Amino acid sequence: MTYTLVLLRHGESQWNAKNLFTGWVDVDLSDKGRAEAARGGELLKEKGVLPDILFTSVLRRAITTANLALDEADRHWIPVNRSWRLNERHYGALQGKNKKETKEQFGEDQFMLWRRSYDTPPPPIDPEDEFSQAHDVRYEGIDGENPPTECLKDVVERLVPYWESEIVPELKSGKTVMVAAHGNSLRALVKHLDGISDDDIAALNIPTGIPLVYELDDEFKPVTKGGTYLDPEAAKDAIAAVANQGK
Amino acid sequence: MTYTLVLLRHGESQWNAKNLFTGWVDVDLSDKGRAEAARGGELLKEKGVLPDILFTSVLRRAITTANLALDEADRHWIPVNRSWRLNERHYGALQGKNKKETKEQFGEDQFMLWRRSYDTPPPPIDPEDEFSQAHDVRYEGIDGENPPTECLKDVVERLVPYWESEIVPELKSGKTVMVAAHGNSLRALVKHLDGISDDDIAALNIPTGIPLVYELDDEFKPVTKGGTYLDPEAAKDAIAAVANQGK
Repeated sequence: MTYTLVLLRHGESQWNAKNLFTGWVDVDLSDKGRAEAARGGELLKEKGVLPDILFTSVLRRAITTANLALDEADRHWIPVNRSWRLNERHYGALQGKNKKETKEQFGEDQFMLWRRSYDTPPPPIDPEDEFSQAHDVRYEGIDGENPPTECLKDVVERLVPYWESEIVPELKSGKTVMVAAHGNSLRALVKHLDGISDDDIAALNIPTGIPLVYELDDEFKPVTKGGTYLDPEAAKDAIAAVANQGK
Repeated sequence: MTYTLVLLRHGESQWNAKNLFTGWVDVDLSDKGRAEAARGGELLKEKGVLPDILFTSVLRRAITTANLALDEADRHWIPVNRSWRLNERHYGALQGKNKKETKEQFGEDQFMLWRRSYDTPPPPIDPEDEFSQAHDVRYEGIDGENPPTECLKDVVERLVPYWESEIVPELKSGKTVMVAAHGNSLRALVKHLDGISDDDIAALNIPTGIPLVYELDDEFKPVTKGGTYLDPEAAKDAIAAVANQGK
């Protein structure tokens, strides 16, 4: 008896396309991102991996990706749960800033530290900044925890309790669970599942729009470390493309 | 202290456009229907009627209407509940049949009895019919109740218990509740709310895509009978157009 978990990273957003730091800013998918989401749904259908319940962040690009993918897979009717605990990492004062300009301003080392170190968050965002969520009603219930910035460690710490308390019980009941979320919230989850070290997680990238399926054993550990992409060739190409960006 | 309920009938579906009986067949919206849904969301935003929680049927045309409208209104992140109890009336053996041909085959009187009588259901659909939901996994949990046909009375009887047990408690907690559903499931709910007689309900039509807002008192009775459409002129025109169809 194994449990089935499907991870889906949202497709390209309008700010991905513009090379801006996004974090908790609630931008929409680009047309390419919508097409990626639909393709993700086709893969679910083709491979017969049919989610019984959906978890999403409270951000539009993950929600719309799930809506489009599930509609394509004829699973639009399943129950839905949303939580800020599945949100992208908060990028602090970098939110809304151009990535290239930020690198030029602060230098490569500082830039990579903010992007990829496990426990160094970017500077906090001003609550009055146009790209702060401090006054957004959807976060009203989480006061003390509403972060002004986050490192990946912070994401792990806010995500894993939600995983344990909300998602694991659904898996235990035998349901195929889909989590539609973001590059860094999914990296945090995969780090937890695969037991990846704080150093090694820096090198891990999850491609957009390609469902990543984990079979989990009785202790909710992956049967196959790293899981299985429903389109392995496309995933390999996408991961190689990201790796080459840094060269 | 009043409670706020928003009803939204899905926009035009592909089968509305083709003049086929739909019922529980899970057809998609037409492009016109998608535009209606987005317009419904604009109205919510313009008028500041912002749902805190969503209830939908398990049918794509209501789900997609809600997704598009809430995205437009910046409320895509609210919690969602879905139930077959909010589904359109089941049209029995008429599902998938052309309305005009059905009228010619069975005559005007029989046709109107099936469409508008309170307690005469159409003939049941064969479980092996391509348009039966008998083998659809989404209805697996409701065995004994999975209907082969329904009259409006049946819809009232399956919907009102859900209204009482699931929707009223959310209203009581102070939330603005949106119900995205169908012509006949919303007629059933409005009949219950406004206390409309079994005879008078035949004449009531709810236009597509225009949010209908009810303020409810302490006993969950409407402060204003019939509620208030967020675009009253468009609603009046749409209702008049339906009334004239029969002439």
